[in-house]
Amino acid sequence: MKVAIVGVTGYAGMVLYQLLKSHPEVSQINLYGHDQKQAQPLYEAVPQFGPTETTLLLPYDADAIMADNQVVFFATSAGITNALAVPFIKAHFPVIDLSGDYRLKDPAQYEKWYHKPAADPKALQDAHFGLAEFENAQGHTYIANPGCYATATLLGLAPLVQQHLIVKDSLIVDAKSGTSGAGKKLTTLTHFSQTNENLQLYGINTHKHIPEIMQEVQTWDPEVPALQFTTTLLPVTTGLMATIYAKAAPGVNGAAVAKAFNDTYQNDFFVRFTSEQLPTLKQVVGSNFTDIGAIYNPVTNTILVVSVIDNVIKGAGGQAIQNFNQMFNFDPLAGLPTTVALP
Amino acid sequence: MKVAIVGVTGYAGMVLYQLLKSHPEVSQINLYGHDQKQAQPLYEAVPQFGPTETTLLLPYDADAIMADNQVVFFATSAGITNALAVPFIKAHFPVIDLSGDYRLKDPAQYEKWYHKPAADPKALQDAHFGLAEFENAQGHTYIANPGCYATATLLGLAPLVQQHLIVKDSLIVDAKSGTSGAGKKLTTLTHFSQTNENLQLYGINTHKHIPEIMQEVQTWDPEVPALQFTTTLLPVTTGLMATIYAKAAPGVNGAAVAKAFNDTYQNDFFVRFTSEQLPTLKQVVGSNFTDIGAIYNPVTNTILVVSVIDNVIKGAGGQAIQNFNQMFNFDPLAGLPTTVALP
Amino acid sequence: MKVAIVGVTGYAGMVLYQLLKSHPEVSQINLYGHDQKQAQPLYEAVPQFGPTETTLLLPYDADAIMADNQVVFFATSAGITNALAVPFIKAHFPVIDLSGDYRLKDPAQYEKWYHKPAADPKALQDAHFGLAEFENAQGHTYIANPGCYATATLLGLAPLVQQHLIVKDSLIVDAKSGTSGAGKKLTTLTHFSQTNENLQLYGINTHKHIPEIMQEVQTWDPEVPALQFTTTLLPVTTGLMATIYAKAAPGVNGAAVAKAFNDTYQNDFFVRFTSEQLPTLKQVVGSNFTDIGAIYNPVTNTILVVSVIDNVIKGAGGQAIQNFNQMFNFDPLAGLPTTVALP
Amino acid sequence: MKVAIVGVTGYAGMVLYQLLKSHPEVSQINLYGHDQKQAQPLYEAVPQFGPTETTLLLPYDADAIMADNQVVFFATSAGITNALAVPFIKAHFPVIDLSGDYRLKDPAQYEKWYHKPAADPKALQDAHFGLAEFENAQGHTYIANPGCYATATLLGLAPLVQQHLIVKDSLIVDAKSGTSGAGKKLTTLTHFSQTNENLQLYGINTHKHIPEIMQEVQTWDPEVPALQFTTTLLPVTTGLMATIYAKAAPGVNGAAVAKAFNDTYQNDFFVRFTSEQLPTLKQVVGSNFTDIGAIYNPVTNTILVVSVIDNVIKGAGGQAIQNFNQMFNFDPLAGLPTTVALP
Repeated sequence: MKVAIVGVTGYAGMVLYQLLKSHPEVSQINLYGHDQKQAQPLYEAVPQFGPTETTLLLPYDADAIMADNQVVFFATSAGITNALAVPFIKAHFPVIDLSGDYRLKDPAQYEKWYHKPAADPKALQDAHFGLAEFENAQGHTYIANPGCYATATLLGLAPLVQQHLIVKDSLIVDAKSGTSGAGKKLTTLTHFSQTNENLQLYGINTHKHIPEIMQEVQTWDPEVPALQFTTTLLPVTTGLMATIYAKAAPGVNGAAVAKAFNDTYQNDFFVRFTSEQLPTLKQVVGSNFTDIGAIYNPVTNTILVVSVIDNVIKGAGGQAIQNFNQMFNFDPLAGLPTTVALP
Repeated sequence: MKVAIVGVTGYAGMVLYQLLKSHPEVSQINLYGHDQKQAQPLYEAVPQFGPTETTLLLPYDADAIMADNQVVFFATSAGITNALAVPFIKAHFPVIDLSGDYRLKDPAQYEKWYHKPAADPKALQDAHFGLAEFENAQGHTYIANPGCYATATLLGLAPLVQQHLIVKDSLIVDAKSGTSGAGKKLTTLTHFSQTNENLQLYGINTHKHIPEIMQEVQTWDPEVPALQFTTTLLPVTTGLMATIYAKAAPGVNGAAVAKAFNDTYQNDFFVRFTSEQLPTLKQVVGSNFTDIGAIYNPVTNTILVVSVIDNVIKGAGGQAIQNFNQMFNFDPLAGLPTTVALP
Repeated sequence: MKVAIVGVTGYAGMVLYQLLKSHPEVSQINLYGHDQKQAQPLYEAVPQFGPTETTLLLPYDADAIMADNQVVFFATSAGITNALAVPFIKAHFPVIDLSGDYRLKDPAQYEKWYHKPAADPKALQDAHFGLAEFENAQGHTYIANPGCYATATLLGLAPLVQQHLIVKDSLIVDAKSGTSGAGKKLTTLTHFSQTNENLQLYGINTHKHIPEIMQEVQTWDPEVPALQFTTTLLPVTTGLMATIYAKAAPGVNGAAVAKAFNDTYQNDFFVRFTSEQLPTLKQVVGSNFTDIGAIYNPVTNTILVVSVIDNVIKGAGGQAIQNFNQMFNFDPLAGLPTTVALP
Repeated sequence: MKVAIVGVTGYAGMVLYQLLKSHPEVSQINLYGHDQKQAQPLYEAVPQFGPTETTLLLPYDADAIMADNQVVFFATSAGITNALAVPFIKAHFPVIDLSGDYRLKDPAQYEKWYHKPAADPKALQDAHFGLAEFENAQGHTYIANPGCYATATLLGLAPLVQQHLIVKDSLIVDAKSGTSGAGKKLTTLTHFSQTNENLQLYGINTHKHIPEIMQEVQTWDPEVPALQFTTTLLPVTTGLMATIYAKAAPGVNGAAVAKAFNDTYQNDFFVRFTSEQLPTLKQVVGSNFTDIGAIYNPVTNTILVVSVIDNVIKGAGGQAIQNFNQMFNFDPLAGLPTTVALP
């Protein structure tokens, strides 16, 4: 299969490209820069690929992409992807979009949270929100790959919300992410002397992943009204942890919580429920796993859930490949890393 | 004034000693090791003090300590201090104790959380819990200096609890600390290859600082029943952040929260309320400040408070000096750092 | 092929095991603990492998190892491996030894640098020093896998020494390593609060890798008398850099240096010579590559060479697999990672 | 004494300002921004100073600076300071300049290394190179404060060069610095995801501190021809280590080296020679100390010297205050930190 990536020079695109190179169903990967004027060796633009990388970064041309490939991955920014995707949508050409531009069904919500014009309402309706463990991409043409925070949070919340184990207005998520989630763009927030030995909160009550979390949560239980969501930038490069708190619904205890997680994820290879053994950040970095632990505290009647992912794999390129595998009915594990960086 | 430190080789003791060296009211500092057999140059035991440090670490002798000093600081571990303190208590000799051994009034609580025999109940009752901004140490002989997590958490909670701004059973604290809080002892949790690029939760629902927080909170409002409290080990050396969540009581909004913090801390030099500008960890490291920000979210009716301290200064040695200053009626700022490590 | 690992719980063994799991010629991996009393799930001993790891750690039994496997990897410590290896040597059973016990040909050298009794002199002579790019393991039964510092240093030195491009007594190596090189053992040197934001030199003029470097260098040019070698512990988990300085021999310039490196490594997939573009540490971490850059400075007549490796892959488990591939005439790239951790 | 700082928003200026605030001879500090259009609270421009910082950043006006102050510190960039300083030089007004613009005596050298037009040759001749332990600033009006790399390197080299203990063409310096040395400017080199867990070499054979090192070295021994100098960016915020190698001159041994260091620095409070105990980076961070250790290796006839400083204190603001103290004949220790960040 021939696949295209647009936006390979950003962190999500880089990881996606590296994963696709070892995907057994992929025979060729063509790389395009959305503002690339002429072909250029990828190694020049992304030295991390090493001196033996000889692939070219090609100029952007929607027709050529459709002619030469069977699917396109967009790893371009929100606001950019929106317009780039139009000809592909018109042509019903398969797209897996890692940006946030087609995740929200309601254009007004997009404009409220992204402060940009929304995509075509019909296209938004048709796009599939690709939370891989819960929404099967098969039969869909346009996949909106979830955000990193949304992925860790939703997988940590799903059993609680779906099985009505919690007090509905009590959800709190204290999420923490490494700097790779903030991308390659130079910012004061991610300047080493500023980030190192520090914790910085950002996007309080305004983070763009909040509405996609709420949209999905409300498909599971429309009565969950809102979510308190906090993001903290960690002095680590990779890894994302969502620490989730909720009051237990009447009668719910630790055993009920454990059963709900075990039942929900018993057939999901990439979600590992570790019971009361709360996961560390590093135990998933390098892999596509989501590790989740949960502890019910009878003293406070509070359920604590800790959900960790590699934000550039499960939170971006890895989940995109899960969606790719579903879309084309490949082995669900194909091309997905199951080992972590040791030690 | 001549002062003694027992336990100068641990991180809290090291910091305390360094601060006392520049305290204007301290003329001499005598150092004792609780298991020191003979005098030894401090520099040998603690190379961080540098080759010009010539002070000796003296063998432990309670009578000599009382004869040669006017106050003793214990920076020894919980379980050790308990017994060491007995002759000083009998002699009504001034003690500032950085351990947890005399913080809890109820012996049963101590034994439940510390899994060790409690100190004498009368001595526990007489000990003063030295949360410097709220409890004045003047007139007290035995000061139990609060724990680092307790300090950041209580200062972040005080206005909310004292002024009844919150739903009483809704308190959640997601606290994070650097490794210096775990001390000098070698552990797997703090082995560099394990800690670096990682987040590790520990002491879930069992952390020893929970009961001292609840004890103090209930002196402010006996109807607050409990506290959900989580601790996460950060890959940084110094700094502690308490991220606090609570549901707002009916009628409470952002302005009410801000007013409560401003009113509470208007005369407290070492607490800086930064309103909706949430503090970063680094902006207090190196100083005795507690910086606090708060944001009320009307969508979730939740108050978010972020409280940061330097865990070895405000969370240990610095607050001990605040108590020392109160005890002897010195300038409240004497010997306390007001600048941070730049950049 | 069935393979055994003894010592899988250390960092080198962990990495080796993870690599062997995806080696196309390996059908089964049996794990043994040299002091394991009874079978135990590996996940208990090494939580990093994740909750889905179900392999057992088996008690040590040399006969069983030989009966059930076709080759054994020792990832046990120097001083331990020495004795464990004896029955395998006697039986001419294939061994790949990651420890330092059989690297030095001269027992007196071993005893001088390791302060322990050396192995049998005949066995030392028969052991093959497996510097994979220069010494082919085919036909050998006992492979002594080189140390991490030795690997990076020797690959950076080889063209200079072999082609006599340098003043023979002018070699200086300023080497730096991440903490994983120091292993899992808890030490003050690798305590997070000590290591973080620090640089610590250690083993000055006494590092155990010095004699194996000199032994190999002198097989290339017996007239090189000695090597100034310094090791510095970095506040990073993984990665090793050897910064090499030498005076250029008369007539040697930058072009001659570049030609020597290009000629030497033109057929070595895992060594990438990047000319005057000096490599960064991270550009090899996660892979089996050695990246090398070199700059000749005419003002000082000095050649600067920078050689970087992933110390637990190319410096341990990866090179062991290169030797395994040579030993059994497998594809030289089989089982070896060619991608790095992004970003 | 009233003092002015121009350029307080950069890291060097920030540190200088913080130090001057506790200098006993300084009664007032006026802050100026070289491109500041109107007065602005410093806290807005530099949040690290905390919410209680109320000083204003004033617009630039050379006449006002001279009218309202008795000395000016320039912490502006090379290329900027050059022109700003002219009216002060004309007026013989005391200047302490932390930039590189007046360090080199030879305009041609400046233009070669800085790629910018040099300052007036007469002004360059009159400027005093303020290496505080070796050149007394008293009686001088214009002080060029040395660079951070130059300071650590020159203090490590001085006894060897001045006492002719080394082979003159054998000097090699492998220097490493934290990111604060690269300043506040956002660059790819200092982007957290790039810098963290990495080592990056930069400025090989072109670093601007090389000519000032050589200029000073040749005042000590004109026969030292050149210096091999390498700089590596560390994943730490603060601290600089110069690892120095040189061949010993005939007859020189470890005792001679130790004696030279002890003799040279016996009266220098801020230089601590630790003999064969090589210093760690952290043991000086936060202080104005330079710690130096040295080991002679008879096998290679090489002297290894390790010199560490806090690059923003001893390497910038702290040494500027040493020069200030010399210039005005104040206590040499006034305003200079002697404690380090613990632990």
